[in-house]
Amino acid sequence: MTNRRVLLRNRPVGEPKASDFEIVDAPLPEPQDGDILVRTIWLSLDPYMRGRMNDVKSYTAPVALGQPMVGGTVGEVVKSRDAAFTPGDFVLSYGGWQAYHVAKAAGARVGPFGPLKLDPQAAPISTALGILGMPGLTAYVGLYDIGQPKPGETVVVSAAAGAVGSVAGQLAKIRGCRVAGIAGTKDKCEYALKELGFDACVSHRVPDLAAVLRDACPNGIDVYFDNVGGEVLKAVLKNVNPFARIPLCGIISQYNATEMPPGPNLAPVLVNRVTIRGFLVSDHADRLPHFLADCGRWLREGKLKYREDVVQGLEKAPEALIGLLRGQNTGKMLVKVGEDPTRR
Amino acid sequence: MTNRRVLLRNRPVGEPKASDFEIVDAPLPEPQDGDILVRTIWLSLDPYMRGRMNDVKSYTAPVALGQPMVGGTVGEVVKSRDAAFTPGDFVLSYGGWQAYHVAKAAGARVGPFGPLKLDPQAAPISTALGILGMPGLTAYVGLYDIGQPKPGETVVVSAAAGAVGSVAGQLAKIRGCRVAGIAGTKDKCEYALKELGFDACVSHRVPDLAAVLRDACPNGIDVYFDNVGGEVLKAVLKNVNPFARIPLCGIISQYNATEMPPGPNLAPVLVNRVTIRGFLVSDHADRLPHFLADCGRWLREGKLKYREDVVQGLEKAPEALIGLLRGQNTGKMLVKVGEDPTRR
Repeated sequence: MTNRRVLLRNRPVGEPKASDFEIVDAPLPEPQDGDILVRTIWLSLDPYMRGRMNDVKSYTAPVALGQPMVGGTVGEVVKSRDAAFTPGDFVLSYGGWQAYHVAKAAGARVGPFGPLKLDPQAAPISTALGILGMPGLTAYVGLYDIGQPKPGETVVVSAAAGAVGSVAGQLAKIRGCRVAGIAGTKDKCEYALKELGFDACVSHRVPDLAAVLRDACPNGIDVYFDNVGGEVLKAVLKNVNPFARIPLCGIISQYNATEMPPGPNLAPVLVNRVTIRGFLVSDHADRLPHFLADCGRWLREGKLKYREDVVQGLEKAPEALIGLLRGQNTGKMLVKVGEDPTRR
Repeated sequence: MTNRRVLLRNRPVGEPKASDFEIVDAPLPEPQDGDILVRTIWLSLDPYMRGRMNDVKSYTAPVALGQPMVGGTVGEVVKSRDAAFTPGDFVLSYGGWQAYHVAKAAGARVGPFGPLKLDPQAAPISTALGILGMPGLTAYVGLYDIGQPKPGETVVVSAAAGAVGSVAGQLAKIRGCRVAGIAGTKDKCEYALKELGFDACVSHRVPDLAAVLRDACPNGIDVYFDNVGGEVLKAVLKNVNPFARIPLCGIISQYNATEMPPGPNLAPVLVNRVTIRGFLVSDHADRLPHFLADCGRWLREGKLKYREDVVQGLEKAPEALIGLLRGQNTGKMLVKVGEDPTRR
């Protein structure tokens, strides 16, 4: 038995290429006291991974060249040297782009990145990487804690069909807001409207997005959950109401940029007394219990819906990340690395 | 007796010119019941006035062509048809660019724009337009309520020698912060360092402001009180600490712009979880009593200092506003419109 891994081979310039990654087979790692050996079933792909490929100081260290790409995983314990875990347990952990990994179980209990034992009866285990995981918590914290929408207000969400945006928009609907999504394709807009229950959804690929948004948001914009930055943020700022809040969750429009593009003119922020606040979900682990209680219930009640965009096999992860950064996914992007016994 | 007035003649394109204004003599206005007739002594010039010259929807209506420019004033009551005021009273009001004006006294008591009776024994009456007036309240609200600096944190203030910046920096010192100013000239930096007690002050006219700021703020920047926007904001964002706060008070760098320039790339806002919040002092009139209590006391105790940059005669107001927008003033820009009996 070997451990297939996807290593970072080169630091990409601009859009990552397949040749920036290297697929290797390594010996299986051996758990020490307090460790568990996990067989990866699901690997989460997320936009933040592009930042980890750069050799730039950010909020966490970059992936070292020759090391496996990082990422959240759901897997099955195959060997345990910790009393709290038994082979056959399903766990959320941060195993990275590989078929097997060792996780420190000792002392670790609950956190957005685990290791956390999952109950396959409660929800499909893959949701621990999506709607009940880091992307869901990101939407929950960003919308409710940072955006603070009030019932009746208008909320705009970009990357509306993505893992975070799709949850943020539904949470705004649950709060009683009018919700307009922004997405890249007609299919995504259909999805946001028909399945997710958004009130409007517009494409950002239009000549005058500000005017299109004005029509979609006749009462102006009170909260903009920003996943993309760039031209979309500019168009939103032309339609903000006084005291609007903009949780800045991501800037995917520039993750592949080789030079930092300018940002939006901030005159509307001054005139309308807007708050723009950047946030990282990792600062908000204390909200996990509230999030899981609320979103778990809403999911069971059918008030929250989700989609998974699954590619089969670890070898497909590089291509899938490249596609994710191009906005090709709908819903949560997952790599199925190994068999999921709960889905037989 | 006639009323000299400065009217808006043309809406400026770019920097205002003398010919955008018109000086006329009109008959003295007549107060009605509940009104007072005020002889203007001091006229405040402030950067926001540039915005009022444009025919653009903003937070208040523009000045109409052919009407006097608006502005805060301190004057003397010469005729009163309200029981609360007596000729000889000194008042803060919003009289605009003219030698006399009628203010509604009835019902009006306290507010940042008056009419508010002033006690010439308590402080020089002109301070009601500066350190104890709207600019002071702007600094107080922006720094303490929006910026929320903690003792020991580093605060950067742009337009550091201006009416607002000079107060914001001193308030940060009173809070126990390290304070670095940014100003346009060596003289202004000297003033900020030697008279206002800032810890550092740098010119924004350097090839690499971000590097200069890094040296001036060895512990990074926790609060940036932004009066200017543009390149200075970009340089600050390269030096912000996690969870920095940026009260956006003004964007004087673009008030004369004919096209809105792009703003800063917001990647540092995301990565460092920065809050940028635009604010207008007019939303914060409820803070006036606290502000007057605190800053009145600090002024008497010598903990707050101020300068006035005075031009003589209403006719000089256009030229002085043009200079203000170029950053030519140090301290509070005032036009002395008429004799000040308290300064004999």
